[in-house]
Amino acid sequence: MRAAYMYGAGDVRVVDVPEPTLIDPTDAIVRVVRACVCGSDLHPWHGMPESSEGTPMGHEFIGIVEQVGDAVATVAEGDFVIAPFAWSDGTCVYCREGLQTSCQHGGFWAAGGIGGGQAEAVRVPQADGTLVSVPTPVDPALYASLLTLSDVYGTGWHAAVSGGVSADTTVAVIGDGAVGLLAVLSAKQLGATTIILMGRHEARTDLGREFGATEVVAERGDEGIQKVLELTGGEGVHVVLEAVGHMPAYEQAVGVVRPGGTISRVGVPQYEEAPVGFGSLFGKNVTLTGGPAPVRAYIEQLLPAVLDGTVEPGKVFDLEVSLEDTAKGYTTMDERTALKVLVTP
Amino acid sequence: MRAAYMYGAGDVRVVDVPEPTLIDPTDAIVRVVRACVCGSDLHPWHGMPESSEGTPMGHEFIGIVEQVGDAVATVAEGDFVIAPFAWSDGTCVYCREGLQTSCQHGGFWAAGGIGGGQAEAVRVPQADGTLVSVPTPVDPALYASLLTLSDVYGTGWHAAVSGGVSADTTVAVIGDGAVGLLAVLSAKQLGATTIILMGRHEARTDLGREFGATEVVAERGDEGIQKVLELTGGEGVHVVLEAVGHMPAYEQAVGVVRPGGTISRVGVPQYEEAPVGFGSLFGKNVTLTGGPAPVRAYIEQLLPAVLDGTVEPGKVFDLEVSLEDTAKGYTTMDERTALKVLVTP
Repeated sequence: MRAAYMYGAGDVRVVDVPEPTLIDPTDAIVRVVRACVCGSDLHPWHGMPESSEGTPMGHEFIGIVEQVGDAVATVAEGDFVIAPFAWSDGTCVYCREGLQTSCQHGGFWAAGGIGGGQAEAVRVPQADGTLVSVPTPVDPALYASLLTLSDVYGTGWHAAVSGGVSADTTVAVIGDGAVGLLAVLSAKQLGATTIILMGRHEARTDLGREFGATEVVAERGDEGIQKVLELTGGEGVHVVLEAVGHMPAYEQAVGVVRPGGTISRVGVPQYEEAPVGFGSLFGKNVTLTGGPAPVRAYIEQLLPAVLDGTVEPGKVFDLEVSLEDTAKGYTTMDERTALKVLVTP
Repeated sequence: MRAAYMYGAGDVRVVDVPEPTLIDPTDAIVRVVRACVCGSDLHPWHGMPESSEGTPMGHEFIGIVEQVGDAVATVAEGDFVIAPFAWSDGTCVYCREGLQTSCQHGGFWAAGGIGGGQAEAVRVPQADGTLVSVPTPVDPALYASLLTLSDVYGTGWHAAVSGGVSADTTVAVIGDGAVGLLAVLSAKQLGATTIILMGRHEARTDLGREFGATEVVAERGDEGIQKVLELTGGEGVHVVLEAVGHMPAYEQAVGVVRPGGTISRVGVPQYEEAPVGFGSLFGKNVTLTGGPAPVRAYIEQLLPAVLDGTVEPGKVFDLEVSLEDTAKGYTTMDERTALKVLVTP
């Protein structure tokens, strides 16, 4: 079959690889209907050392179950399924608490012998715990929105839920990528009435407004911080949803958060150390929370409003490419000419 | 009157200063009944640059109201009062939310022209917001426990409440100082049934056991972390109460916290940067919370059990000195021959 592999920074190729087969009785084989390129795929696209073997790519996909192992009970051949960006057994202590990204027997796509989603088919370990079936037939018009439940919508939702967003909180969202915009949508769904989106790409912030942003702050750094403080009577916001992962975004979060407030991070931090002392978090009793979103925990909850069209998170996709053109997805997202790219095998 | 001043590292003297007088109509003058030395007083005791003027010391005291300004309504001459370690107006947006340490018109003792608690009397700004009256007559046997409501008990309580301690959480407390031990007591009051105290001063950890610690881990660093993991089936604890403020304590907290757990800090951080990236907090979805405790918010809630003897947080005091001997309080606490020192003017 065909699959996208990365062989080094800026080097994504679609190559022939063996079809995946069942290995463990808990496996399923899923034929991919739609996959996509993630903002986090750009990190290796910028920095991966050259490799002659390459590494499979992609961790978001929806598809049709083609085959299941003997121990699989909850999904069956022909099911239309959503695969979250981490696979998990659904039964360990962390899964039962809804923290599937810390599953004791789980893992991530495109690692440890498991393929990536940017491919024609994928072997899914722990299929019972991992996959969520969607009632069929599925309207192809819903594919894009369903695919966001694999990662970006659930990740934006995780930011908002972990941050404690409610009707009583003011919110700032840092980052106008797909996760930031869906953090806006999530904050809106959770009842927030002041949602300040910090981003400067007008097409994206326009979509942010459509998703529920009440203010857009295009300024960055101290200027952006001042703007948010002005919009909040000098106090700052109760909850900051940080959907970028770079240090300037962290500093911006510290600058706009209110005393007693919360910074909820879902942008994968590209730093290990950061200010947390008296002058940043401690003195103001600011809480820092977040992490890799256990999107599996949220799919059933978010699915109905996607299916009935109440929300359209799939609007974050603004370019579609064929699997053969996957590299173009990386290039356009890196150039920021595309917000998020849908891949059709 | 007499008051303790610090003139540089290791140099505390009791000197003659003018009696405090009412300045603002919201002031009260309080004659100090008991004050004490705080672990955080040892930070300047180690590092304060030499100063010919010196700085007043002490931020914990109980006393009798001697005089009130015209605008003071809730406390009166003769009242026996507890003064929290931060003064606050009680009416601003943060005070109303119970975050008095961020009061828009508040501040801290021994700064900005306000005296310290290690003195015969103190001018208390914003007396209505700051002071809490205790029903009189007050049994002198309760003085020590009432004084802990000024800081260390409320600070231990803040750690436990901010960390979300409940009957459903396992808890580790890092630090066997007064705050750590009262964090143990607080966790016990909040229903925790597994409370692991990390400390190695046996007299203190014995008091910790009396306050509710179910396990004591004397080992530090990796060895201490391994011990806590063993005690928790390899998972780590749901909540870590960090009552030290030095980097090794932070690292220990990161090492023993469970995926999805919380580190609640009340030890004033002696660092500004710390690990918060994928390898420390983010990857495990760990929450970092805490800060200067708004002890004012907790006094009314914690007072009844102190008054009726249900709890005896005053047991953390193991040395009493006269105001004239305040310097001895610093020396013995620094040498760790005293846990916490009561000062009687």
